[in-house]
Amino acid sequence: MLNFQYFMPTRVLFGPDMIDQLGETSHLPKGSKAMIVIGESGAMIKHGYLSKVQSQLAKQDVQSIVFDKVMPNPESAQVDEAAAICREKEVEFIVGLGGGSTIDSAKAIALMATNSGNYWDYMQSGSGGGVEPENDALPIVAIPTTAGTGTEADPWTVITKSDSAEKIGWGNDSTFPVLSIVDPKLMLSVPPKQTAYTGMDAFFHAVEAYLATCRQPASDMLALEAVHLIAHTLPEAVANGDDLEARTVMAWASTAAGMCESYSSCISHHSLEHALSAFHPDLPHGAGLVMLSKAYFGFLASRGEERLGDLALAMGDTLQEDLEEEVPGVAFLDALDRLITQVGLADEKLSDYGVTREEIPDLAENALTTMGALFDITPVPMSQDDVIAIFEAAYE
Amino acid sequence: MLNFQYFMPTRVLFGPDMIDQLGETSHLPKGSKAMIVIGESGAMIKHGYLSKVQSQLAKQDVQSIVFDKVMPNPESAQVDEAAAICREKEVEFIVGLGGGSTIDSAKAIALMATNSGNYWDYMQSGSGGGVEPENDALPIVAIPTTAGTGTEADPWTVITKSDSAEKIGWGNDSTFPVLSIVDPKLMLSVPPKQTAYTGMDAFFHAVEAYLATCRQPASDMLALEAVHLIAHTLPEAVANGDDLEARTVMAWASTAAGMCESYSSCISHHSLEHALSAFHPDLPHGAGLVMLSKAYFGFLASRGEERLGDLALAMGDTLQEDLEEEVPGVAFLDALDRLITQVGLADEKLSDYGVTREEIPDLAENALTTMGALFDITPVPMSQDDVIAIFEAAYE
Repeated sequence: MLNFQYFMPTRVLFGPDMIDQLGETSHLPKGSKAMIVIGESGAMIKHGYLSKVQSQLAKQDVQSIVFDKVMPNPESAQVDEAAAICREKEVEFIVGLGGGSTIDSAKAIALMATNSGNYWDYMQSGSGGGVEPENDALPIVAIPTTAGTGTEADPWTVITKSDSAEKIGWGNDSTFPVLSIVDPKLMLSVPPKQTAYTGMDAFFHAVEAYLATCRQPASDMLALEAVHLIAHTLPEAVANGDDLEARTVMAWASTAAGMCESYSSCISHHSLEHALSAFHPDLPHGAGLVMLSKAYFGFLASRGEERLGDLALAMGDTLQEDLEEEVPGVAFLDALDRLITQVGLADEKLSDYGVTREEIPDLAENALTTMGALFDITPVPMSQDDVIAIFEAAYE
Repeated sequence: MLNFQYFMPTRVLFGPDMIDQLGETSHLPKGSKAMIVIGESGAMIKHGYLSKVQSQLAKQDVQSIVFDKVMPNPESAQVDEAAAICREKEVEFIVGLGGGSTIDSAKAIALMATNSGNYWDYMQSGSGGGVEPENDALPIVAIPTTAGTGTEADPWTVITKSDSAEKIGWGNDSTFPVLSIVDPKLMLSVPPKQTAYTGMDAFFHAVEAYLATCRQPASDMLALEAVHLIAHTLPEAVANGDDLEARTVMAWASTAAGMCESYSSCISHHSLEHALSAFHPDLPHGAGLVMLSKAYFGFLASRGEERLGDLALAMGDTLQEDLEEEVPGVAFLDALDRLITQVGLADEKLSDYGVTREEIPDLAENALTTMGALFDITPVPMSQDDVIAIFEAAYE
């Protein structure tokens, strides 16, 4: 019998030019001092997004300081450094401007701005200290500039422990953004490869949320919508980055898939990838997911996971009648293969990122210890040997 | 280009026996003193729901006082009376237990417990005082015992001014329930006629949210889901009230339609009905909607509203191919007619509730003044003469 919790308290303002509402919205957190968190690449400065956000905040008499040291696979040392600045400067809310790594860092900084010790003290798995935070995080405003992470519509932050190979997800009610501004115009500047990586991340959020045993009707709907839209739009967004309509559809699909992370969850596909990019910080998260995906979903298909058929239908090249004559998992794997090719990622290889066959047992061990909880909601059981076999198959 | 706000911060705990979580959930509002608001009929006492809620609250060391004077079409005098008690007794949160009228009253009481003056001072249309409330409402917990109103997933409260014929909707961010517990087992006791009335209310919330010009992708999905589920399940819930599966599906459909009230909105069909039940407080809201519906949606169909075709498809007896040969509006009207018959409401007549033909101009005037804003988001323009013509057609 139907049984679920529905909770996603973030206010999402969505649409082209929505960023211009930041200076006028009555929904900005209270306070006159904010920290804007951006990535170290300088892209937010180069494209003028930082100055746009600063001037919008100034309209609301909010002074802002900038923290610009977030790395693509963000680390706990920067979180602790930025949080110390927040405490010293009495920052009242945090704005995350950029991709998933930036907004995730903003969430972690918001938590540590109001709690003592180090970020890793609060992690609940791996070498984390297992401490429960005493205070709510500072209010968070999320302004994504990629369509992929969905972090603007979920409480999760994924941070790697500095000087280690542990990449762990965390979140509580206070790390849902208070306000997220999703403006597809801020995504026009994302290069093709990164568009493909981030778009495929969103795709797998939706796919996994649809398969997770903790799914609910709302996540099912949003997931099928996101899978459908991404399968039909991501190739165009990759090929023609200045197509605002494709960017807008991808932005909504990514946010919808983020909502799925709140109403349902990722499954162990993400655990395996987090192990990969914890060992190899230069490996983009979306690339890792893509390189694992055929082996991973092939394993689910071999175990007869029937909901893969619904996903194949949502991807749109298979009619219900055809599907009845085909194994649902096979139809999905065919559609997945086609999508990966269409977005230009068919040639990605784990070895190109320095992954070695010898690491595989350690990767499997890491996936099971640092993100083990996702295995509990994966629809088919998966032993450590199964995980090793999936890594092996992905490595071929 | 896609453009919307997505915001529905209520935590919904859904499922049979979920009421037993009330005593354990960490999501209850802070405080040790609550007011439980129930209807005057005594149903909540008779079925043991009140004592269940009281004992669950006691587990969390919450003392509760009961306000039991809410009428089926709830009035402002009771809101003001209950709010005065809250202020005097220093109540910290409000629990609404019952149908829409009770939960709506709980919301209005929560607002007036923290603000001065009378409830009607804060209404923004009709004879309302137009005052903006200074303070947020007390936290609200909603426990619906009917599947219809959807108020557990929206900020709206609809109250009639005592000694007048004005029925006005109102709400702000603070009147979203903090927590809603939707337990279909609490709905098993609803009699067939009331099951039909409330179920049809949920149906029209979804239909209208799908047609409203302020719709967004999430409301479209939830609306089509709710329309589909209600068309296929409400007849069974009416015929066989102790079918827990049918009650569970209807509970979810009603909550989903309530979410649509947050992500999108009702249209002027509801304005017309509010006028009817403001003039005739004994007329159940769902009955009023049903009696107006063929004339109202007939008017939209006559103006070529194409989205009625999607709703006909969701209702499920029309194939896409058939629809291409049929006028979309006609297909919807056929399906609506069938559903009204299946749930046993085909013989309802406005004159049975004391509505007279002479009142029609006043009803039209009332609909346009007290709930005029809904006309602005109705997909086709509607003059006062059109509204009169719809009432006339419904009266035939």
